[in-house]
Amino acid sequence: MNIVITGGAGFLGLRLARELLQQGTLSLAGSPAQAITRVTLVDRAAPPAELMADHRVRAIEGDLNALLEAAPDAGPVVARDTAVVFHLAAAVSGECEADFDLGMRSNLDATRALLEACRRLGSSPTLVFASSLAVFGNSPQQPLPAVIEDTTLPTPQNSYGIQKFIGEQLVADYARKGFIRGRNVRLMTVSVRPGKPNGAASSFLSGMIREPLAGVRAVCPVAPDTPVALSSPSRTIRGLIRAVEASDADWGARTAINLPALKTTPGDMAAALERMAGREVAALIDWTPDAAIANIVTNWPAHIDAARARRLGLLPDDNFDAIIAEYLEVTPTRS
Amino acid sequence: MNIVITGGAGFLGLRLARELLQQGTLSLAGSPAQAITRVTLVDRAAPPAELMADHRVRAIEGDLNALLEAAPDAGPVVARDTAVVFHLAAAVSGECEADFDLGMRSNLDATRALLEACRRLGSSPTLVFASSLAVFGNSPQQPLPAVIEDTTLPTPQNSYGIQKFIGEQLVADYARKGFIRGRNVRLMTVSVRPGKPNGAASSFLSGMIREPLAGVRAVCPVAPDTPVALSSPSRTIRGLIRAVEASDADWGARTAINLPALKTTPGDMAAALERMAGREVAALIDWTPDAAIANIVTNWPAHIDAARARRLGLLPDDNFDAIIAEYLEVTPTRS
Repeated sequence: MNIVITGGAGFLGLRLARELLQQGTLSLAGSPAQAITRVTLVDRAAPPAELMADHRVRAIEGDLNALLEAAPDAGPVVARDTAVVFHLAAAVSGECEADFDLGMRSNLDATRALLEACRRLGSSPTLVFASSLAVFGNSPQQPLPAVIEDTTLPTPQNSYGIQKFIGEQLVADYARKGFIRGRNVRLMTVSVRPGKPNGAASSFLSGMIREPLAGVRAVCPVAPDTPVALSSPSRTIRGLIRAVEASDADWGARTAINLPALKTTPGDMAAALERMAGREVAALIDWTPDAAIANIVTNWPAHIDAARARRLGLLPDDNFDAIIAEYLEVTPTRS
Repeated sequence: MNIVITGGAGFLGLRLARELLQQGTLSLAGSPAQAITRVTLVDRAAPPAELMADHRVRAIEGDLNALLEAAPDAGPVVARDTAVVFHLAAAVSGECEADFDLGMRSNLDATRALLEACRRLGSSPTLVFASSLAVFGNSPQQPLPAVIEDTTLPTPQNSYGIQKFIGEQLVADYARKGFIRGRNVRLMTVSVRPGKPNGAASSFLSGMIREPLAGVRAVCPVAPDTPVALSSPSRTIRGLIRAVEASDADWGARTAINLPALKTTPGDMAAALERMAGREVAALIDWTPDAAIANIVTNWPAHIDAARARRLGLLPDDNFDAIIAEYLEVTPTRS
């Protein structure tokens, strides 16, 4: 089985690739598991050498739009024998707000071109589209309901959310037409992300754990009791893989499913950090309010009732202690 | 004030143009009414000579995509001084199912190109997007709720509905960015349409009234008690104009509003026809079930709770007698 991952050299793409390579087989829509013979990582960046050492791994480096435009007849990005495409590549929300045309190109045009490449195969490959909780935006004219369900009307309040929601619609229709088997999956905010802080408003939700564990001070810019909805990297990856494995009947509607999320607060996260790593580590969090970030974060939905995911056996992390434990297991720390 | 109507030579486009020309002025988002100085009808077909005789009317004939591609710098379709664009042009649902690429081009690409043309003006013109009840599709995996509200999640079950729903998202985001003032309006099934039967599954909902009134037999292919949601041409046009007139505050969210619809049945429609035109006319309806059409029509939502439209003063037709009366007033019949 040949699997393609766009955004394959990103944090989630690499985690997904490692998980797939480790399990070695994959069941497609309820059929018996098949050996994974190739994992192709499409990304602007090169995957790490350690991953490339696996003979099953291929890398295609370049801009996804450019690669797809250069190969109108289903060239390198989606090879003839591709069975599964995980479409994770995207411009992130900040970029899309700063540069509207970039977002439209990276998120809308690239998704459509990828769908066209899959359609041209004629073999109806499975495409998992990584949509986002960002489709749910709060606005004074249209406040979000207290609980987000799978049937809640998305009202995106930024271009990234709009482009992701449009992507869901395209995937649904390409699937209905039989051009692909489509799986629309909305990812939650992932914590704890390894690496460095980025420009995302959600960056602190990883940084306030990751930095103290490395002995570095970190800021939490919102009130300790701010509700937030989080998912560990492993539960997120589990959701993406389950989307491929689920039979069409089990998956159900072509509209997107919300992945499960743990409803917690920065205060609870800090308490978990203290339990897991001690008082001195937790004391490295600076509680320094930032009104701009607080305004963004408090407009995110915090209570997700992921009923469809639950029926597929996908559950939120048990608690934030477990999320920290996973992070400590995967990532070397200073101590 | 310069107004552009795409699909301007179609049934609704012409009705809209005549209504605007007759009222002579238009209020923009709650501001004082201004004189309408030009109405530009963009369509593949030419408008009737009688309309062209009005010195305020211009016609641009051609394929909308081709016209927009030929004029990347906001050329003829959207002239510099355009204040309002009614975007009615679309490939219809049957065409979009038969030719996927045609639908994507006519409905998605054309809408995006039109939005880009408006954006290039730099003057944030008002764009009214004629979306459709077709965004609400019923499926075994995701049955529609009994009552459709403005916050009901659309689950389109055909490409036309998907493309209209994507158009709504684009309009919402172009509006949020300030490129346009956006107004997303979902049109209901219009009855009684003048003219000839067309290939639409809904065609009989006009034909079963129009044909008998002209002394011609007509088929109703569904059971008399099948619930259907209809709007007269005049209420539909009223909704499109109200979308321009409403202030941003009165309009509210950038998501689409459902126009109001009269919930009725073919049985009630036939009874109204008998009351309005006599027993002999109503007897020209042949009640000949067609399972294929019945299967489509019974999957349409029939009960619309158009709360936002109601708050804007937009109400459904009082009853089907009134709809027939309007048709008789506008259209000469045989008798």
